[in-house]
Amino acid sequence: MVSLADLQRRIARGELAAEAAVARSVQAIAAQDKAIGAFVCHDPEARAAGQGPLRGIAVGIKDIIDTADFPTEMGSPIYRGHRPRADAPVVAMLRRAGATIIGKTTTTAFAATDPTATLNPHNRAHTPGGSSSGSAASVGAGMIPLALGTQTGGSVIRPASYCGAAAIKPSYRLLPTVGVKCFSWTLDTVGLFAAGIEDLACGLSAITGRPELLLPALPAAPRIGVVTQDFAGEVEAASIEALQLAARKAELAGAGVRALPLPQVFADAWRIHTTVQQFEAHQALAWEYRERYDEMPPILRGRLDETRDIAPAEYDEALAIAAQARAALGAVFEQVDVLLTYSAPGAPPKGLDSTGDPRLNRLWTLLGTPCVNIPTLVADGNLPVGVQLIAPYGSDGKALAAARFVEQALKR
Amino acid sequence: MVSLADLQRRIARGELAAEAAVARSVQAIAAQDKAIGAFVCHDPEARAAGQGPLRGIAVGIKDIIDTADFPTEMGSPIYRGHRPRADAPVVAMLRRAGATIIGKTTTTAFAATDPTATLNPHNRAHTPGGSSSGSAASVGAGMIPLALGTQTGGSVIRPASYCGAAAIKPSYRLLPTVGVKCFSWTLDTVGLFAAGIEDLACGLSAITGRPELLLPALPAAPRIGVVTQDFAGEVEAASIEALQLAARKAELAGAGVRALPLPQVFADAWRIHTTVQQFEAHQALAWEYRERYDEMPPILRGRLDETRDIAPAEYDEALAIAAQARAALGAVFEQVDVLLTYSAPGAPPKGLDSTGDPRLNRLWTLLGTPCVNIPTLVADGNLPVGVQLIAPYGSDGKALAAARFVEQALKR
Repeated sequence: MVSLADLQRRIARGELAAEAAVARSVQAIAAQDKAIGAFVCHDPEARAAGQGPLRGIAVGIKDIIDTADFPTEMGSPIYRGHRPRADAPVVAMLRRAGATIIGKTTTTAFAATDPTATLNPHNRAHTPGGSSSGSAASVGAGMIPLALGTQTGGSVIRPASYCGAAAIKPSYRLLPTVGVKCFSWTLDTVGLFAAGIEDLACGLSAITGRPELLLPALPAAPRIGVVTQDFAGEVEAASIEALQLAARKAELAGAGVRALPLPQVFADAWRIHTTVQQFEAHQALAWEYRERYDEMPPILRGRLDETRDIAPAEYDEALAIAAQARAALGAVFEQVDVLLTYSAPGAPPKGLDSTGDPRLNRLWTLLGTPCVNIPTLVADGNLPVGVQLIAPYGSDGKALAAARFVEQALKR
Repeated sequence: MVSLADLQRRIARGELAAEAAVARSVQAIAAQDKAIGAFVCHDPEARAAGQGPLRGIAVGIKDIIDTADFPTEMGSPIYRGHRPRADAPVVAMLRRAGATIIGKTTTTAFAATDPTATLNPHNRAHTPGGSSSGSAASVGAGMIPLALGTQTGGSVIRPASYCGAAAIKPSYRLLPTVGVKCFSWTLDTVGLFAAGIEDLACGLSAITGRPELLLPALPAAPRIGVVTQDFAGEVEAASIEALQLAARKAELAGAGVRALPLPQVFADAWRIHTTVQQFEAHQALAWEYRERYDEMPPILRGRLDETRDIAPAEYDEALAIAAQARAALGAVFEQVDVLLTYSAPGAPPKGLDSTGDPRLNRLWTLLGTPCVNIPTLVADGNLPVGVQLIAPYGSDGKALAAARFVEQALKR
């Protein structure tokens, strides 16, 4: 993979021209993407564009995020050739920070679960995950140093785990979702993929203009609560091994590590994530469902068919449970600084029939907490497996610093 | 004005064809809009479209809300001829309820404060208010029975007061803002304009599929707290008179009425509304401000120039104050059922240099509570003045029932 922070340092020291850094991504896409299919479109003439901390950084944008100079097709023929007038704010913020938008990355249609044709860069017989398939695969393949994705269930953390990339789903609304095709406004969150934790911190800090998100020189040893999310079902041996490995290495490096059972309200919140998501999806996609039903992707359309009768009262109750769970998180984070849990139920599944299961990510998306995927091990078949680190809402800097601690501990 | 509920009843009884109801709006626009300028565009061939409770109801849509079959120009040359691919969800929900979208109503550019050319239907030397200028004017003039607007500061309740229309700014997110040009995601709220409170209830219930929003046959007498919002500055005699009149009439009709001072946290929340709004506007309008600066409307551009240095920490603190104020509202609503306050600082200002001042609406937009404008009196110069009724977050049915009580009390 290509380290954003490393590129930044080399550009700042004059060892690497910003133009050369962008050209390197252009070449990598030309060399690799025919086999992987991470990009819907890209600019082979891309140049270093602006001034700012991200000058020379080529960024891929998930194709449900509006761009003025590339089509934005939502992964669906319904939006074929669609050309927004404006960049989404998060894209404009990237440009303001000096980044070069190099292209649009594949997305499952409307960021749901109908798979794309994108292949996992580490083993092309396996899925890269979804819905941010192209963003995870392009960063995991080392084509680009930074990509934007979105998560409504588990669409950032899961594909990052599958593609061996670091990723952050920041606190809800740290990055604006304006100009991003909506699936569920209570859940949709824009996130970043990069090579490592420091790269995420540099990227997120530059986009938001928040220096407090940069890593401290020496991240302090965090108190870690290990959470197994038993309410979310069984996980495979590879994920169990990854979580145990990360916990053990962190403890060896000086972290306080303890198993932490979660109160019942979190199991309830996990359960109603789907109610919130589907009730809002019926509104968010009302035009497509009503006017372009035949062109809707089949898995998504089927899910919408099944969930069309969720009553407003059921949705209201789900939101009330979500609020209770968010409030209950305060007591959890009195005991520990961060949580460590699975990023996905296992290694990336074989084949392209499924993008994998977001059941280990749903709760945290609903709670709005920052979540970081830390690449942890490589299972049989060259298949990456990550772990997920979670911090309190609004503590994105803390999440990144603790994730950096675990990342470094894993390297010892 | 044209009563939506009355049209519904006559259509249901077979006294009026749905086609004739829509045709009446087409004719009214042809007859009146040349003088008022409430519509950016409309369909002179509009027909009763679907099935559902709003069949035969012609609806005007504020021109920052996406429509697939009309341009959506945001009140700005930057979006001239812009044609979204999809209807905004709230428009799709209107169509699903059977409504006919008859046209797009004028909006100040990007729903900010640069005035439109729209005139107040009751006195053409005065502003209709903004930013939902055309929606308020078209309903106030009796051209259409229902219109959609949006409020970020006071852009629904204030123009409703100025145009003598009833209006509701519902609880934050009761109506989706997806496909609505964003100014501030924490604040932007879609609202309705109609002739009276019952019409609002019928419209909102039909769009959302929530029967609990329909009015009870006999609204109970509410306990009303009268709030003067002294932190928001002086108000004119006409507004003072309107608030006193509404309070007195409600009390005569059996309501419990008492003056209610608000704790300091609400003054703080009122003060930081602008911080939240402007910090988010800089992100929401990042593309326009960066790429189309010269074409930005001058008042908005100047406001953005002045507020470009709001630090993320200042914004975070503002959001924390907003959360404290929302929590403090619980204690307020233990004492009373609803609040009654000013809708605007006075009668609609003369001339078209200003759309009036949203300072009496800001706090409630920030708190996310349902707010209802009740037309109350007509001041010298045939200038309408309303009062604003406020209920707890999520209690939109309660807000409408209490507003109906006050509306009926005013007629006695």
